[in-house]
Amino acid sequence: MKLKVYADRMSQPSRAVIIFCKVNGIDFEEIKVELSKRQQLSAEFKEINPMGKVPAIVDGRLKLFESHAILIYLAGAFPGVADHWYPADVSRRAKIHSVLDWHHSNLRRGAASFVLNTVLAPALGLSLNPQAAAEAEKLLSTSLSIIESIWLKGNGRFLLGGFQPSIADLSLVCEIMQLELLSEEDRSRILGPHKKVQQWIQDTRNATRPHFDEAHNILHKVKTKLAVQLSVRANSEMESSIKRVLPSKM
Amino acid sequence: MKLKVYADRMSQPSRAVIIFCKVNGIDFEEIKVELSKRQQLSAEFKEINPMGKVPAIVDGRLKLFESHAILIYLAGAFPGVADHWYPADVSRRAKIHSVLDWHHSNLRRGAASFVLNTVLAPALGLSLNPQAAAEAEKLLSTSLSIIESIWLKGNGRFLLGGFQPSIADLSLVCEIMQLELLSEEDRSRILGPHKKVQQWIQDTRNATRPHFDEAHNILHKVKTKLAVQLSVRANSEMESSIKRVLPSKM
Repeated sequence: MKLKVYADRMSQPSRAVIIFCKVNGIDFEEIKVELSKRQQLSAEFKEINPMGKVPAIVDGRLKLFESHAILIYLAGAFPGVADHWYPADVSRRAKIHSVLDWHHSNLRRGAASFVLNTVLAPALGLSLNPQAAAEAEKLLSTSLSIIESIWLKGNGRFLLGGFQPSIADLSLVCEIMQLELLSEEDRSRILGPHKKVQQWIQDTRNATRPHFDEAHNILHKVKTKLAVQLSVRANSEMESSIKRVLPSKM
Repeated sequence: MKLKVYADRMSQPSRAVIIFCKVNGIDFEEIKVELSKRQQLSAEFKEINPMGKVPAIVDGRLKLFESHAILIYLAGAFPGVADHWYPADVSRRAKIHSVLDWHHSNLRRGAASFVLNTVLAPALGLSLNPQAAAEAEKLLSTSLSIIESIWLKGNGRFLLGGFQPSIADLSLVCEIMQLELLSEEDRSRILGPHKKVQQWIQDTRNATRPHFDEAHNILHKVKTKLAVQLSVRANSEMESSIKRVLPSKM
């Protein structure tokens, strides 16, 4: 039975899993779980992942969630995945686990909360929270500095000084790609100072093309949609403020 | 050269690493990094872990931080660690990674923030934040419900239905043990409804005795110290309010 990947490409860890499968020639069926329709909370999907989150996979009798766990599993369970993605060497593997663990409470938390509280919230029926956005930006910028000064400090092009990407590069770069949804001003303020990070994103992209670009296409579409929604909202707010002002002048 | 473990037993992941080494007969040197003295931020320690956090290890040329990464490394690099701690079977291993990944943004975040914002903050020179405590309690309680209803739902005594503990049991139970620092009222309100969780804590404790109790001794000492500080603070506040009241009556 073919591997099933439950995903929404709007989710950065979903994209990491999809790209990993495609780059490594893992045969899989992609099953769309639409977050905007809250399909991840359906009883049917909760049979797959009781946490109600994407991505999740089903491989034979195994149901699995948490994208890092999925990437590690796929690297070990499918033949033909090159060693650099998740090296057999116990020390190199340890360093990858260390970066992936760090990711949860740092880059991930900062990036996801910043994107949510500056652009995504209204599309999910939530309010924007400028204070949460400000705190998230701090965590995000610190995380990018750490990546730049600690894990990309060597001569290698990838995390931990490697010359080929690992699952940690893929996971973290997909997270940062979520910043494509931001305004150009926000994005360049945050990413601008980190030249090595920018080069590393490009290198990871090049190493996983064309699958990387194909999986990220959705971000450009959604960005356009968000911009239209924003302008409609701004127009309707302007109209209602004109209506409020006009009667008082009559 | 002997394995070096840099730790403060007040840190729950530090205890998990120390207990793991002792239970598995791994020969190590424990090097205390006192969080209350901010030793984790010293230039010397940052040579070991640039993130300025404990635990961290040095094993030969390898410097490693993040407790889950450390536990996985130790299980693989040292002979004689029983398979149940970190099974060779790729599916069982995947489930352990999944629980450990989930831990970061759920149980860990809830428990650590609740303990910080109800009892620990003043000892670290910070203010208690009741709103953050309330949010943390919600996340903590949801996390305990998930452990009870999903991962302890089988007949096994440990996470994922096992009959022997894994590194995930050890990591998560050490996290929950941090609740020993709370008032009895808070602790029983939060843990009371979760009978399976209570039994699982006891089972993990039994499986790792006497090292479990020895590593957790510090919590009882610190709890007494916090209670004394609290009563001194309450007395001095009472005295100053009496002083404020008395002159106005005179």
